[in-house]
Amino acid sequence: MPRQLLNLFDYELEAAERMEPAYHAYYAGGVAENLARDDSRAAFERLRLRPRVLRDVSSVSTECTVMGTRCDSPMMIAPAAMHKLAHPEGEMATARAAKRAGVIQILSTMSNSAVEEVAAVGHPLWFQLYVFRDRAISEDVVARAEAAGCQALVLTVDVPALGLRENLARAGFEGAPHLDFPNFSGPGAGGDVVHHAAHTFDPGLSWKDVDWLASKTRLPIWLKGILRGDDAAIGLEHGAKGIMVSSHGGRQLDTAIAPVDALPEVVEAVDGRCEVLVDGGVRRGTDVIKALARGARAVMLGRPPLWGLAVDGEDGVADVFEKLRFELENGMMQCGCRTLKDIGPDLVV
Amino acid sequence: MPRQLLNLFDYELEAAERMEPAYHAYYAGGVAENLARDDSRAAFERLRLRPRVLRDVSSVSTECTVMGTRCDSPMMIAPAAMHKLAHPEGEMATARAAKRAGVIQILSTMSNSAVEEVAAVGHPLWFQLYVFRDRAISEDVVARAEAAGCQALVLTVDVPALGLRENLARAGFEGAPHLDFPNFSGPGAGGDVVHHAAHTFDPGLSWKDVDWLASKTRLPIWLKGILRGDDAAIGLEHGAKGIMVSSHGGRQLDTAIAPVDALPEVVEAVDGRCEVLVDGGVRRGTDVIKALARGARAVMLGRPPLWGLAVDGEDGVADVFEKLRFELENGMMQCGCRTLKDIGPDLVV
Amino acid sequence: MPRQLLNLFDYELEAAERMEPAYHAYYAGGVAENLARDDSRAAFERLRLRPRVLRDVSSVSTECTVMGTRCDSPMMIAPAAMHKLAHPEGEMATARAAKRAGVIQILSTMSNSAVEEVAAVGHPLWFQLYVFRDRAISEDVVARAEAAGCQALVLTVDVPALGLRENLARAGFEGAPHLDFPNFSGPGAGGDVVHHAAHTFDPGLSWKDVDWLASKTRLPIWLKGILRGDDAAIGLEHGAKGIMVSSHGGRQLDTAIAPVDALPEVVEAVDGRCEVLVDGGVRRGTDVIKALARGARAVMLGRPPLWGLAVDGEDGVADVFEKLRFELENGMMQCGCRTLKDIGPDLVV
Amino acid sequence: MPRQLLNLFDYELEAAERMEPAYHAYYAGGVAENLARDDSRAAFERLRLRPRVLRDVSSVSTECTVMGTRCDSPMMIAPAAMHKLAHPEGEMATARAAKRAGVIQILSTMSNSAVEEVAAVGHPLWFQLYVFRDRAISEDVVARAEAAGCQALVLTVDVPALGLRENLARAGFEGAPHLDFPNFSGPGAGGDVVHHAAHTFDPGLSWKDVDWLASKTRLPIWLKGILRGDDAAIGLEHGAKGIMVSSHGGRQLDTAIAPVDALPEVVEAVDGRCEVLVDGGVRRGTDVIKALARGARAVMLGRPPLWGLAVDGEDGVADVFEKLRFELENGMMQCGCRTLKDIGPDLVV
Repeated sequence: MPRQLLNLFDYELEAAERMEPAYHAYYAGGVAENLARDDSRAAFERLRLRPRVLRDVSSVSTECTVMGTRCDSPMMIAPAAMHKLAHPEGEMATARAAKRAGVIQILSTMSNSAVEEVAAVGHPLWFQLYVFRDRAISEDVVARAEAAGCQALVLTVDVPALGLRENLARAGFEGAPHLDFPNFSGPGAGGDVVHHAAHTFDPGLSWKDVDWLASKTRLPIWLKGILRGDDAAIGLEHGAKGIMVSSHGGRQLDTAIAPVDALPEVVEAVDGRCEVLVDGGVRRGTDVIKALARGARAVMLGRPPLWGLAVDGEDGVADVFEKLRFELENGMMQCGCRTLKDIGPDLVV
Repeated sequence: MPRQLLNLFDYELEAAERMEPAYHAYYAGGVAENLARDDSRAAFERLRLRPRVLRDVSSVSTECTVMGTRCDSPMMIAPAAMHKLAHPEGEMATARAAKRAGVIQILSTMSNSAVEEVAAVGHPLWFQLYVFRDRAISEDVVARAEAAGCQALVLTVDVPALGLRENLARAGFEGAPHLDFPNFSGPGAGGDVVHHAAHTFDPGLSWKDVDWLASKTRLPIWLKGILRGDDAAIGLEHGAKGIMVSSHGGRQLDTAIAPVDALPEVVEAVDGRCEVLVDGGVRRGTDVIKALARGARAVMLGRPPLWGLAVDGEDGVADVFEKLRFELENGMMQCGCRTLKDIGPDLVV
Repeated sequence: MPRQLLNLFDYELEAAERMEPAYHAYYAGGVAENLARDDSRAAFERLRLRPRVLRDVSSVSTECTVMGTRCDSPMMIAPAAMHKLAHPEGEMATARAAKRAGVIQILSTMSNSAVEEVAAVGHPLWFQLYVFRDRAISEDVVARAEAAGCQALVLTVDVPALGLRENLARAGFEGAPHLDFPNFSGPGAGGDVVHHAAHTFDPGLSWKDVDWLASKTRLPIWLKGILRGDDAAIGLEHGAKGIMVSSHGGRQLDTAIAPVDALPEVVEAVDGRCEVLVDGGVRRGTDVIKALARGARAVMLGRPPLWGLAVDGEDGVADVFEKLRFELENGMMQCGCRTLKDIGPDLVV
Repeated sequence: MPRQLLNLFDYELEAAERMEPAYHAYYAGGVAENLARDDSRAAFERLRLRPRVLRDVSSVSTECTVMGTRCDSPMMIAPAAMHKLAHPEGEMATARAAKRAGVIQILSTMSNSAVEEVAAVGHPLWFQLYVFRDRAISEDVVARAEAAGCQALVLTVDVPALGLRENLARAGFEGAPHLDFPNFSGPGAGGDVVHHAAHTFDPGLSWKDVDWLASKTRLPIWLKGILRGDDAAIGLEHGAKGIMVSSHGGRQLDTAIAPVDALPEVVEAVDGRCEVLVDGGVRRGTDVIKALARGARAVMLGRPPLWGLAVDGEDGVADVFEKLRFELENGMMQCGCRTLKDIGPDLVV
């Protein structure tokens, strides 16, 4: 009997069966003992909800804006490298699904489709940025993203070096030499992206590079990979327009604090000066409620859209978001929330 | 060797073997990962008792009153749909067992026996109410329940929409088209109760509907599905005469707080202005003691009587309550309590 | 390869293999889900030791006095019914082992050897007392114990009714009709001790019975089965000379607080006015240290001597105590304690 | 497919397969239920990291000094008896690996190579000291270590008696009669080291022996096996120059507090007056960060170099340290630390 795809965990299982094992390993793995990855999820399961009743939820809206952009639900596609490992249409399929789902896509620098091509889909698109040792390459990427119409730059700040992705060695993952990385050229583009990352990303990245980046673009800059309130505050001083609380899917530093556990501290530190997003372990509509109750503007999803992509291309990604949106709507009804504004800190304990 | 039916867990196991799997799934399942369902039980197991000794328990009484009605023990039959899934005699067998056990039965709107027929058994009967989009249907149901002699109305407030009952799809549960729902007529009565619920229950239910309901009946109204002190207080302002702390057996909102953990907050909020009941995870006499120690007037049981019904019809239900009453009596003796009034907050830690 | 008997857990395993299953069940079981029994042990494992170093432990003594009686180690044999279920020599073998081990034996009312016979072994002997509905029987037992030279009476206060020993039914335990209960006569002596207990022990036992008992004997009275500070204080007011913190091996009230967790409260309540003993889950020398660090004068062991008895009669019991004494001595050396007086609350966290 | 040796856990598994089971048991075991051993590790996994970002980690150094000696990384080889159980080249291979790795080796009194021979390798060498009942033997050992050029003496203070190493009996470990113990002579040298230890180590060791030892050597004295702040402070009063927080790999006192959990108390007590080291459960670079964040100067590793030795002799040991150093460097980059001085208490929660 074929697996029923009822929720995101089903997509995870189905994708695991359909994908090339080494490619699956690339997506699924964390680092070391996967404690950060697993605790990101467990942190959501530890939280308890305190639902309100009898609030007339005949009309519920999951709509929101993220930095002024209207979204059908408070969900975004987190940047992830190489969507073509999951499906031959890669980021293009993801883009079309994002458009259908009414959510913002954050395109990875390491995407297999060019930013211009993805942007042509005509949905809200943000661009994730790795800063290369060769700043000229980065400047070029930024200019292209800006020209393509991306609405924001997402600077990944938690990859000074690649984490201990031991599972790649165990799975025999040796990169994807057949894939293109059309967002940039230069040494190492294409081929073994893991080693590429290790050799071309700049471990010297520092707060002054945020200043530098701000000077090179008129796009708002988000910082992705913040897990501390003090870092969030420093980021704002350097001109960041938004903070993304993230542990990179547990793929960088094992036993890093779970993002949803770090969220309250960051929200308190930014004190309303910018919007805060969070990712890591979001799998259920109730997780979205918990993240918003703790002060997030929206959540980002990394692996689930990839599972959707692997299972059914564009339709799979769209279905992943529709399922989660439906669950959110259902959860909001159970909690007596008509709009996302009704989701307050009292809902979670 | 046949299973010895020594306690409610034995009934659970035996029922699981005897029932049609899809019907069993309908009863057994929670929502999503079943975390709310399982934590309801675990919350009881986490609590520790501090027994008193040498209190002369030669004469112990488990008698109590619930809203003035004398009961043999502080237990009630929680409302549950479709008892005929468990046994051909359905709610009639449950009713006769309730009479024998000396406990109040709360009949579900979605019962397979008409309220008049059940009431004719002559035991204390309350009626659980779902409010339909078509208020005329609900008015009719209320009038019938009142006329039949029900002593209270139990308004379920935690089903603005049906929860994510994924296990029904996995088990292939497709409703029970062979069953009657004689308490009401109208679109969808009979057939697939799950979809029916989704389409006919009113998600717009709000506090003003409590006022409306109070205006339509002289029966006292209980609110079932409260998990917060503030909601309990609002309910009292709207004329509710009793509060039932419940997460609907973990069948509505996953990771909802365990009822017995929410109980102290609710008890504090109502501050003696009404009686408070609790359900969710009660399986042992010691659970009853814990619930009462935390301020509940009595507990309600949802699944256990259904297991009893599935195993042995009326006798099974009666035995489930007798076993639990015996355990309660034994637990009271161990704790030095002669009457339920002796069960105070100091017993639990 | 025969099992190496290195510690008390080994004895437990070996006894389980050697004994008649139903008899083993009688000893091993707790009540209900065995949560009280298992948590008694787990509570010890949760505590952490903070050893002191460089204290010159070339000479270590585990000697102590319990109510003035010198013991080779702070351990006692807790009362337990029917030692002949474990070994044909029953309590006589236990007594000889106690003498060799230099520990006090507490003989159960329900022993299979008469108190006079056991006392003739010439070791320090206390007598555990169940109070029968027929006080004349109890008076007779007390008089016999006193005449036989017992040094204290241990009044069991936590059996107003027998607990929910479901495992006995599952194991098919039907009493031990072949055994004698020579400490008393009257209805039900001999035969099915479990039902006997249910029918002859007095559930009406109260604090005034402690007064009554004190008026009938010149022996000091200990209360066994206290888990609360307030009860301990009441006991002292009624003339008790010692308090035994116990949950009856988890055989009476499931989810009762672990004795070693209740111990500090009791020690604080008696405030030095009497000695406090504890039992439940003691299996290692480090457990003894933890119990003493929390204020116990000594620990009592219930099941382990029975495992010893089942495995090797008198020698088995003696070895159980020698192993535990050796472990205690070793643990004291590791903790920098030369005498039991050096074991203070700072050792445990 | 041969096992990939990616981290220290891989070495552990590989060594377990390659070694003589009884010898493996000697290294692997703790005492009793191994709770102290396992909690030492679990304590690290319980701690969460709060990484800093954008700190320019293009140049990261794991260099440190330990009592003035420059080390390539804040790691040391903890003393362990009988390296020749793991590899025929024993401590000599370990020594050469330590030299390559740039870490200090602490040679055990119970080594199978003479201190003079090991010192000739020319790397920083410390000497671990057991004090024998016969002080003359100890004096001789100290004089030899000093003459050989050892830079410090590490007095083991947590073996007043050998712990309950039951697993040795279970594994049939009967010592290693074929091995030499060339650091000392006297009764029991060679043969069954476990029994030897039990009979020749001095349980009477006390603080005055620290004074005595200080009078016999010009080498600085470290105390290894401290788990309390007060003991650390006493040690400093007796002239100790450094404190090693350790539970002897969980091989002495079961349920002893995990060293990394005891560390903050010790660091606070010494208040900067000396350096503090820690061992027990260090397996990952992130563990090193956690230990340093809690105030350790460096960590010591006991079992991992032995696994390396068993797997691949000198190269294996060197690889163990290189892997851990690489992980530390990676972890420092993830945490925004350029030098070990950047690792502060705010990194850990």
